[in-house]
Amino acid sequence: MLLGFGETNNLLAKYKIPQAKAKIVKTKNEAVSFAKQNGFPAVLKIFSPKIIHKTDIGGVIVDIKDEKELLIAWAKIEKIAKAKKTEILIQKMITGEQIIIGAKRDSVFGPIIAFGLGGIFTEVLKDVSFRLAPITRKEARQMTGEIKGVEILKGFRGKEPVNLLKLESILLSLSSIISNEKQIREIDLNPVIANKKEALVIDAKIISRARLADVQQNLAAVGLKKLDYLFNPETIAVIGATDRPGSVGRGLVKNLLAARRGRKICLINPNRKKVFGIKTLPSVLAAKGQIDLAVIAVPAQIVPKITEECVQKGVKSVVIISSGFAEMGRKGALLQDKVKQALSRAKIAFVGPNCLGVLRPPTGLNASFAPLTPNRGDITLISQSGALIDAIIDASSGKSHSFSALISSGNEAGLTLVDFLNWAKNDPETKVIALYFEGLKNGRRFFEAVKSIRKPIVVLKGGKTKATRRAVGSHTGALAGQAEIYSAAFNQAGLIEVDSIEQILNVSKALSWQPRCKNGIAIVSNGGGAAILTADYCSKNNIDLPRPAFKMPDRWSQNNPLDIIGDAATKDYELAVNSMLKQKNVHGLIVLQTVQIMTKSVENAKIVIEAKKRFKNKPIVTAFLGEKSIKKAVKLLEKNKIPNYSDPLEAVEAMKALVRTAK
Amino acid sequence: MLLGFGETNNLLAKYKIPQAKAKIVKTKNEAVSFAKQNGFPAVLKIFSPKIIHKTDIGGVIVDIKDEKELLIAWAKIEKIAKAKKTEILIQKMITGEQIIIGAKRDSVFGPIIAFGLGGIFTEVLKDVSFRLAPITRKEARQMTGEIKGVEILKGFRGKEPVNLLKLESILLSLSSIISNEKQIREIDLNPVIANKKEALVIDAKIISRARLADVQQNLAAVGLKKLDYLFNPETIAVIGATDRPGSVGRGLVKNLLAARRGRKICLINPNRKKVFGIKTLPSVLAAKGQIDLAVIAVPAQIVPKITEECVQKGVKSVVIISSGFAEMGRKGALLQDKVKQALSRAKIAFVGPNCLGVLRPPTGLNASFAPLTPNRGDITLISQSGALIDAIIDASSGKSHSFSALISSGNEAGLTLVDFLNWAKNDPETKVIALYFEGLKNGRRFFEAVKSIRKPIVVLKGGKTKATRRAVGSHTGALAGQAEIYSAAFNQAGLIEVDSIEQILNVSKALSWQPRCKNGIAIVSNGGGAAILTADYCSKNNIDLPRPAFKMPDRWSQNNPLDIIGDAATKDYELAVNSMLKQKNVHGLIVLQTVQIMTKSVENAKIVIEAKKRFKNKPIVTAFLGEKSIKKAVKLLEKNKIPNYSDPLEAVEAMKALVRTAK
Repeated sequence: MLLGFGETNNLLAKYKIPQAKAKIVKTKNEAVSFAKQNGFPAVLKIFSPKIIHKTDIGGVIVDIKDEKELLIAWAKIEKIAKAKKTEILIQKMITGEQIIIGAKRDSVFGPIIAFGLGGIFTEVLKDVSFRLAPITRKEARQMTGEIKGVEILKGFRGKEPVNLLKLESILLSLSSIISNEKQIREIDLNPVIANKKEALVIDAKIISRARLADVQQNLAAVGLKKLDYLFNPETIAVIGATDRPGSVGRGLVKNLLAARRGRKICLINPNRKKVFGIKTLPSVLAAKGQIDLAVIAVPAQIVPKITEECVQKGVKSVVIISSGFAEMGRKGALLQDKVKQALSRAKIAFVGPNCLGVLRPPTGLNASFAPLTPNRGDITLISQSGALIDAIIDASSGKSHSFSALISSGNEAGLTLVDFLNWAKNDPETKVIALYFEGLKNGRRFFEAVKSIRKPIVVLKGGKTKATRRAVGSHTGALAGQAEIYSAAFNQAGLIEVDSIEQILNVSKALSWQPRCKNGIAIVSNGGGAAILTADYCSKNNIDLPRPAFKMPDRWSQNNPLDIIGDAATKDYELAVNSMLKQKNVHGLIVLQTVQIMTKSVENAKIVIEAKKRFKNKPIVTAFLGEKSIKKAVKLLEKNKIPNYSDPLEAVEAMKALVRTAK
Repeated sequence: MLLGFGETNNLLAKYKIPQAKAKIVKTKNEAVSFAKQNGFPAVLKIFSPKIIHKTDIGGVIVDIKDEKELLIAWAKIEKIAKAKKTEILIQKMITGEQIIIGAKRDSVFGPIIAFGLGGIFTEVLKDVSFRLAPITRKEARQMTGEIKGVEILKGFRGKEPVNLLKLESILLSLSSIISNEKQIREIDLNPVIANKKEALVIDAKIISRARLADVQQNLAAVGLKKLDYLFNPETIAVIGATDRPGSVGRGLVKNLLAARRGRKICLINPNRKKVFGIKTLPSVLAAKGQIDLAVIAVPAQIVPKITEECVQKGVKSVVIISSGFAEMGRKGALLQDKVKQALSRAKIAFVGPNCLGVLRPPTGLNASFAPLTPNRGDITLISQSGALIDAIIDASSGKSHSFSALISSGNEAGLTLVDFLNWAKNDPETKVIALYFEGLKNGRRFFEAVKSIRKPIVVLKGGKTKATRRAVGSHTGALAGQAEIYSAAFNQAGLIEVDSIEQILNVSKALSWQPRCKNGIAIVSNGGGAAILTADYCSKNNIDLPRPAFKMPDRWSQNNPLDIIGDAATKDYELAVNSMLKQKNVHGLIVLQTVQIMTKSVENAKIVIEAKKRFKNKPIVTAFLGEKSIKKAVKLLEKNKIPNYSDPLEAVEAMKALVRTAK
């Protein structure tokens, strides 16, 4: 429902949003006396909630300079007003730049606000800045500063700059309205006109009564402590344990048995006496003592029965691997709801259904059917796609990525992405969080969670384009919001958004192994082409390249990128690397190497490793290019936690993340 | 020098570019009579070549409706004209959209033209389309269509669309002027005003007499046939042959001896009697019979003496590996010029100096000091950076890229990038051309060459940002032009521009192995996350994903991407892959695989290979993700010329190139 003229005015006034003086007038005399009182020039327009583009039907006459012009204008507008059955509004005319400020209640993220220049800029160029409300004044300033058309606001071609402070105040007030006034669904201040002196709302449209229910409430809080049972169980029951080749149950059992470390593992299967030579139990109820974690891999239809037994047994946490639930349509969704109700009532923390499981490399726990177990490290990967975890584990097997946890969140009937984020926030083993997801049930909770986490978070979002939103629907049953709002939320919360699976690994590795640093990076290379490409990437990413300030051999490029040319010996690398790192305005280093006939890769790697020990606070990443002849060197580098990349572009992306996340 | 009012008018009239009626007037009576004759409204403005932004100083009064207003305007303008010592111009007022059309003679590419919307669009948003002139009407149409603000021209918010045909005609005429009138350096038609009926030039600024000499002339044509001696020599002299470890000369000799295939190789070194046990000669003059190719790897200072001996001997072609020339400053440039003069006079085809050399895998020729020799294939790589070739050879050693030629063009004192392009154009072994360069001596020759080549060309351009133009200067002494003009030229000539070394290899591999195809691609995947990301990339790259139209198992996603879910067996892949390929509106296929416990990678690879045999004209690329568990499968795929990528993003980039280069 659209608010009327009076209600709109009152609401804006309540939040101190300044409006151009205006009045609904019934007669030309009323109009004349308003104009005389408030001064010419004036604007006369039709007023109706139903007509959106008044200008297009001639319903707006601007720049009325005196009484004579006003009477002529009145005659024209009155005609249209009668034909269209609208009221007539007179307003003091304001000159300046046209701006649109808006707010809405998004179905995923709740209150958000938007800022853009009027007309073409917003409608054709989509040049709009978004933020989740409420915002701070600093964020309001970022909004006015980050649109492409910002030059217009700063005073284009000799025009005076507009009053940004007043615009920011309107943004802040609007942020308060959409945050506080729960009955408001959407607000459009269009246009706001800003000049050097002021910023005034000319037209406002406010829609009340949220069509959508407010963002979903948090699931019955399970309590973070319960997750201890999940990630650090002493007793585990595998329900659906089997050794049938190619089966999920077999994978699970193998993984759990491979690194028991004193954990008690009960294999449950009423149809098999023994699995891998170990005696099974017919039901979890037959197990002795407390069960910290039950992993369920039985057909969907019997999962409700199994979960009931888990409740009865007082199992502390559950992972439901089985698929065939909400991802398969309505029937599966009903089944899922049944399971969810039972476990939630009993306050049992549970993961899934339709997931790969949970891995905790530091304790050797692999409660998943992933074909491999990754190395122990400090990256926690949380993914809505189990297959993506498989792919990442397999990819990391040849490389040096290492993990503190890998969590496949599946359909998220119980624990969600956000619960795992909150867990990882305080997990002492986790230094970096990597995230893949397609949709969020509650974007607002997600936003609050990531904003409160001090650890760097790298995020890959699937389903960002319209074409894939269809596919997402069929995949997880999760809600996919608009790409722009997601990106705005990531940015606002300081997340690092990446575009591909390789990038999420590349960036996470750098954040895991290297310190973060201020802007100001040196590039050392024995190949000119690679150096130039690297400098191009830095320039595109706003990474500064301070000039070298030390005495160096004439044959070098005397520049940053520092090209120590093709015949560079190890001692050339030594001089270049250490001299650049010694420089005060150099905060990090990218070392490139192309293998030439005189190149000693392993020796060069050692130089980098030694330098790293000397300059602990300055991150180093390398791009030793090639394959065969650098294998040993790369192994050595990565053993010493210097991330190597197979392309200079990847090295720059990694360095950018280190600069971006510095305090 | 800026052309005057009359000259400007005459030139535009000669090329039939329509202008708004205008006249320089000395008195108000003259102005009034012009306005009466041509009709109101009129525009009055100061006119001076020196004042660029007339509006900013109040020098333009528009929308003069009648004689009375004209007289008031005259008084104002006359005052400014006197103060600024300018003339006064009266013009019929035209309403419509403001457009800028420009042309200039670029120092690298010669005549180019530009098209953009006026004011903010051009100056703030840099929303401009470029083309090298002359253009066709089709290209003129592309220009008006590809700017971001195109909606403005099509009629925004109920406005009438402007006359695009008339705008295109102005573009074509301007293209003729800048192509034909060699004395013109720059033309600015700003604004051109376009409405439904017409497009008229309101203001034109023409600068004559090129400040820069016209683009450099072609080097003394050596004749393409001479390149036969270079790529297919029967006798080779290595001047500076040695077996000293770590030396360039040793690398050269080893590479040449490794695959002689009946070629006669003379080792020249006055200071060593034997190299690798082979007797040396003191000078090339001491060699018996004709020398097809001399490869020089001696210190720069003695290169002039050596080249003179080569001339004396009548050597057919020369590769100068030695560095220490133009890339090292003025002194080196003089040395380079000396060498160039001598060889050019003798019409000897030569490569370098300061290069890695030339490799021709099909005949086993490796006249370079690269540490490895790549596989024989059909990609020709031409690079201004030798180190980049090293890196690419090394990278390809672990993968399956294979080459018809690798050419390091070095300082290009003799043969240039363009000469090699013209050679590769007709080389029967070359199917795909991959190009790395930083600057062009003659962009126009480059443009004409690539436009005439029917083979796909993939290009990576270094030095695209301002920061690196400095670095380029110190690297090759080549000229780096503006990034936008380069990209426009690539686009106009149908090249595929890539951003990284990995991309140039990835894309070339697909073009080398797979047929090109129309838009309309299917994605088959056993992992939902990977499928969704792939669909995202397709959507961003305008790759269409037709829906599947065959009966399939319920558990699949019934969609494109076709998610055959995690437990997909090989027979699921078989059904999905073949059914999608059978579909008429599917022209190519991307197969994704994440390794899950039941995944049989090698079996799945075989399915893909079989399908490829059945559907010869439909390209297939794969992204089998992971490392360890897919190695065998990937080897099998690539042996059968199905390119596999380690990330879905790379697979889509490859597919995009196949679609983009289809006829």
